[in-house]
Amino acid sequence: MAQKPSIPKGTRDFGQLEMARRNYIFDTIKSVFALYGFQQIETPAMENLSTLMGKYGEEGDKLLFRIQNSGEKAALAPEKGLRYDLTVPFARYVVQHREEISFPFKRFQIQPVWRADRPQKGRYREFYQCDVDVIGSNSLVGELELIQIVEEVYRRLGIRVCLHINNRKILAGIAEVIGAPDKMIDITVAIDKLDKIGVEAVNAELRERGLTEEQVKALQPILNLSGSTADKLTSLNTILASSETGLKGVKEMEKIFDMVEATGVQLNIELDLCLARGLNYYTGAIFEVKAIDAQIGSITGGGRYDNLTGIFGLPDVSGVGISFGADRIYDVLTELELFPKTLQSSTQILFATFGAKELTYALRWAKALRAEGVTVEVYPEPAKMKKQMSYADAKQIPFVAIVGGDEMAQNKVMLKNMSTGAQQLVELPELVKSVNC
Amino acid sequence: MAQKPSIPKGTRDFGQLEMARRNYIFDTIKSVFALYGFQQIETPAMENLSTLMGKYGEEGDKLLFRIQNSGEKAALAPEKGLRYDLTVPFARYVVQHREEISFPFKRFQIQPVWRADRPQKGRYREFYQCDVDVIGSNSLVGELELIQIVEEVYRRLGIRVCLHINNRKILAGIAEVIGAPDKMIDITVAIDKLDKIGVEAVNAELRERGLTEEQVKALQPILNLSGSTADKLTSLNTILASSETGLKGVKEMEKIFDMVEATGVQLNIELDLCLARGLNYYTGAIFEVKAIDAQIGSITGGGRYDNLTGIFGLPDVSGVGISFGADRIYDVLTELELFPKTLQSSTQILFATFGAKELTYALRWAKALRAEGVTVEVYPEPAKMKKQMSYADAKQIPFVAIVGGDEMAQNKVMLKNMSTGAQQLVELPELVKSVNC
Repeated sequence: MAQKPSIPKGTRDFGQLEMARRNYIFDTIKSVFALYGFQQIETPAMENLSTLMGKYGEEGDKLLFRIQNSGEKAALAPEKGLRYDLTVPFARYVVQHREEISFPFKRFQIQPVWRADRPQKGRYREFYQCDVDVIGSNSLVGELELIQIVEEVYRRLGIRVCLHINNRKILAGIAEVIGAPDKMIDITVAIDKLDKIGVEAVNAELRERGLTEEQVKALQPILNLSGSTADKLTSLNTILASSETGLKGVKEMEKIFDMVEATGVQLNIELDLCLARGLNYYTGAIFEVKAIDAQIGSITGGGRYDNLTGIFGLPDVSGVGISFGADRIYDVLTELELFPKTLQSSTQILFATFGAKELTYALRWAKALRAEGVTVEVYPEPAKMKKQMSYADAKQIPFVAIVGGDEMAQNKVMLKNMSTGAQQLVELPELVKSVNC
Repeated sequence: MAQKPSIPKGTRDFGQLEMARRNYIFDTIKSVFALYGFQQIETPAMENLSTLMGKYGEEGDKLLFRIQNSGEKAALAPEKGLRYDLTVPFARYVVQHREEISFPFKRFQIQPVWRADRPQKGRYREFYQCDVDVIGSNSLVGELELIQIVEEVYRRLGIRVCLHINNRKILAGIAEVIGAPDKMIDITVAIDKLDKIGVEAVNAELRERGLTEEQVKALQPILNLSGSTADKLTSLNTILASSETGLKGVKEMEKIFDMVEATGVQLNIELDLCLARGLNYYTGAIFEVKAIDAQIGSITGGGRYDNLTGIFGLPDVSGVGISFGADRIYDVLTELELFPKTLQSSTQILFATFGAKELTYALRWAKALRAEGVTVEVYPEPAKMKKQMSYADAKQIPFVAIVGGDEMAQNKVMLKNMSTGAQQLVELPELVKSVNC
């Protein structure tokens, strides 16, 4: 036999169990988004390269998958590329469709993205992103709702999490007050690594990025700020007294925490001044969510941006959004064994038969059961008992209804409970009841 | 302002209403698939070109979207292409994962495919396919279940349909008995167009394709066969008496119709000897479903294939499958106004407020309502009444809860029914009730 076919490296097939589990994650998230009035959109897999280029930095441009032109233009430079994330297509969508959209625009989007990254464990060339954003309003109610969504999604999934929150205006204020206002990005990029590489390496990187010894020193108390959230915010009001932007950031955080309290949010929320997030477009609150019981990094993240659509010519539209990392959530649920057991099989009952007449009899019963909403399979041929039972085992089907001549004569089936092995002769109404409880 | 951004020709953005409608179609189809134990899989958007090339004919090879290699191999010929349909990736999947699969393997798959076709009305370069197949069994129960699925899907969607059914073995038998056994494909391709171009043009095409005048003549009675299904099958048993394959096909059809009757299928089913379907891999029953109340061509189609996985080195695995055409079903539901009205808005109630205190009050109520499963939005800032009402109108939100000082003092909200204009002061439990009925 020929060599087995394969798929491109960094891509994956999803079998039935993986799909059932992935759908469980997406359905849970979608049901929470819906409660808040977020509605789904989809954009094409291909975007014009002019839409994508220059939006993800030099490195990002290299990682775009380019599509060869078709027909006569095949030899010319590609004009289309595959979606690299959901953020840039969303910005493009908002600008392109702005006349049809009612702002504030609450949208979510769950689609795959593609990156020509070197594949490695946990890093794929095709993976799903799951983004939720509200755009067209400065209101901090946006931040509150995203926090409430995080709380509810992880409550439903059964994952204990901690939400880390910070504010880019506070980071800008810090850069200002230590006398390095043009170095905010350098500072945030460096301190974003505090958890990973430690304070000494961060300080070294800060020096490399052009901060003076004095500036690095001035930064230390801020990196080491501790106490309750209220304490930290009070200290920051003092430290950032000379920075208008910094104070604005502190005020935003105070308002967010006030609303969190007023609405009884139970989520663990930590004001984390070391949280920076690499993306340059954030301008206000930034978030990252970590699972408490698994070591896997951030499973959800996002923030406030004031000018995402500016790159497409529509300035001054503020929005806030977060992205759920489906692959990591999948890994956490697997590690903590939190997937519902019922996802293993969707089929509740398999009919096993041993002749043409029995098969027809089973098909009639199957029809009646499906009309009651019961998920039924009929083994499609009168194969050996063992083969039919193996099929039920492999698909983890909990009940097998065996149909022989005796059963048919009594208008019954022999119902076998596959986990206990118990068998009993039942009529149709009893069968519906047995399967549903 | 800069020129509006755009998307590649032949691709589409789907806004909220379109997505809600598309999800309604897919969810309906998926719920029926589930009743029969079909389970979902997904394959990557990119396949190795070696998997795709030569599977869709010369024309198909030209229509494959090729992906430029990344890194050092960028200048070399592309090695990957975008999925062109779901059938070839499914065959590849079955061969690649055959050790993990329990046969008969009942799978469905709903994913986009890409074709570098010239875009025109109703023809896109990116579109979803929705395929359901059972592979690894010769049993005609497969055909029966697909017929039952077609019946139930269109019953749920409210579309009246007719299922046309034929059999490739009968077509082969016809080619045999008219003395042109090597011309089955030519004959089927030509008579597939009978509906579109008429009998004279079909005959002309048959002659062009090398059939003798005698053979064309011998074909006429078969094209004009009429009467009930039983009549037609009886005639065919006579006409095809000298063809073993042809008789086998007739026998298959008789068995399928027997099961259809035994299980009380109510669907309109027509044995249609002019139905051929272009694809060469079909070997048994073939299906096409047409909407009775809309002129739009086939909205579902498929058939039995005996050697789909042979191209990947795994011969003699028989399967049967159909594909639902989501775009055409969408158009039929739109034309016949069959989409449920409730898809227009997912939000049941919008809170309108006029100050910071009222906003906090509304956020508390919203939380309580969401805990009851009510979909709630809070207009995120105390904007002018008109602006907030316009937002509710645009999103077709049926209720607006207005919160002012008076309402807060009484622990109530002023509930406005947006379709009748009626307003009443209500407490929280009444609000839940009003919205839910």
